Amino acid sequence: MTPEKQQERVRSSFAKQGLMTTLGATLSSVSPGMVEIALSPHPAISQQHGFVHAGAVTAIADSAAGYAALTLMPADTGVLTTEFKITLLAPAAGERILARGRVVKAGRTLTLAQAEVFANTGGQEKLIALLTATLMAVEGRDGISD
Amino acid sequence: MTPEKQQERVRSSFAKQGLMTTLGATLSSVSPGMVEIALSPHPAISQQHGFVHAGAVTAIADSAAGYAALTLMPADTGVLTTEFKITLLAPAAGERILARGRVVKAGRTLTLAQAEVFANTGGQEKLIALLTATLMAVEGRDGISD
Amino acid sequence: MTPEKQQERVRSSFAKQGLMTTLGATLSSVSPGMVEIALSPHPAISQQHGFVHAGAVTAIADSAAGYAALTLMPADTGVLTTEFKITLLAPAAGERILARGRVVKAGRTLTLAQAEVFANTGGQEKLIALLTATLMAVEGRDGISD
Amino acid sequence: MTPEKQQERVRSSFAKQGLMTTLGATLSSVSPGMVEIALSPHPAISQQHGFVHAGAVTAIADSAAGYAALTLMPADTGVLTTEFKITLLAPAAGERILARGRVVKAGRTLTLAQAEVFANTGGQEKLIALLTATLMAVEGRDGISD
Repeated sequence: MTPEKQQERVRSSFAKQGLMTTLGATLSSVSPGMVEIALSPHPAISQQHGFVHAGAVTAIADSAAGYAALTLMPADTGVLTTEFKITLLAPAAGERILARGRVVKAGRTLTLAQAEVFANTGGQEKLIALLTATLMAVEGRDGISD
Repeated sequence: MTPEKQQERVRSSFAKQGLMTTLGATLSSVSPGMVEIALSPHPAISQQHGFVHAGAVTAIADSAAGYAALTLMPADTGVLTTEFKITLLAPAAGERILARGRVVKAGRTLTLAQAEVFANTGGQEKLIALLTATLMAVEGRDGISD
Repeated sequence: MTPEKQQERVRSSFAKQGLMTTLGATLSSVSPGMVEIALSPHPAISQQHGFVHAGAVTAIADSAAGYAALTLMPADTGVLTTEFKITLLAPAAGERILARGRVVKAGRTLTLAQAEVFANTGGQEKLIALLTATLMAVEGRDGISD
Repeated sequence: MTPEKQQERVRSSFAKQGLMTTLGATLSSVSPGMVEIALSPHPAISQQHGFVHAGAVTAIADSAAGYAALTLMPADTGVLTTEFKITLLAPAAGERILARGRVVKAGRTLTLAQAEVFANTGGQEKLIALLTATLMAVEGRDGISD
């Protein structure tokens, strides 16, 4: 697949994720092995202290890692997250939350990807979370193709 | 704190989590060291293949583990997730998704909790995810008190 | 495979692990989906404060989880750990350290297993670590068959 | 503490780890926020297929991450690993195994560190494992001071 087709595949799949729309997340960048997803803090995605909920931070981080993996997979292959770990370093507060996923090692069956999550305030970026995920390439299973 | 006060603290904190309302999650059970959160699948929380998004599954699992930890913490203490790991075992499909958090070991500073997530279809429960989390008790920091 | 053949396969594989002999670890129990490995604390496996090194605790916990997974895999299949997470709850001190691995969910390609590690002192067991691992079944790859 | 004193503290602590001597591991580099530990493959640290056992790989990766964290901690503070996750990417085979630990974020109580593990064969380095660890600074607890 060309980078353009890969990008199109990620964009089309992302648009089908109801949760991303619900959270207000947007796909801000797609390139081979790297995907960025952004989120604007608002009350509908908050936790009890007013920060962005770890669940929302995790959702964009996991998606960024998963789509980064998908950009390096063959056509007609879907991607599933088998597991991930996230370390939360600071409250998710700021004007914009940005998850940057990148592939660490792409394998035939399993891919290791990481996502760093940054909080942006007044042009300053602060690392607020680090996710490590194992992604599995699946072929023609349950109609999964992205 | 009495179990009733602990329960009240968890319910009051949960009600302030904007994300839980947005996802349609409900607190179905609170007892010392154990908390259950339920979710009904709907398109607004889906991923690209129509299943419940791993981000939504993770959000309720993390909250169930965190609140289970909170039930064993002293008054005037808040709880923060420092990290968690989740293994996704099967697609989150069914009539109802239920996350059951329980404390494995409560410590002065750090607590280890797990959450099992089940998908319920026609009265049958299937384990679809397992989360392990480290929770930190925080006192009087940034106004955190639940 | 019969439980007896499964047991024999695990015992034979364990005996080939140079590290287990070096650590002084022994295979104390093997049954379908469950394996126990024991270790006696001694200076050669210590860390700087005199406790058993987390690396030794982890080695027996990972092996216990991996062999628990192997007991449920078909003949001519080998097992590889793809990733694991371990939470260390207390210093590994006592007369005997015991890792109990058990399968949480066995899949065709991937298996999820956990291992609890206990320190035994004067007949009292204390949970000191919890490991969660993803194991992969491999067939005829690189001569891997156990 | 000066970098020299930090280095001395790490070297002295490492020398007390019986397991590192038993594995044949050596401390190859110590600088602020970064520590390297090397290992030469030999049968006494092998697993059943002849590769270096994941337990030995993990032991040096965990120690490299932990000591990297220690280099940024105040005097009279000890370091404990509270949890870590490791992804194993390829068999640990080669002439030399090298774990490079570095601090991602140093906090007052908790530090996040990562360790990459490389296998070196004929001058070629290959990434074989990635570890993410949470380290806790402890003061005057149980005589822990390194």
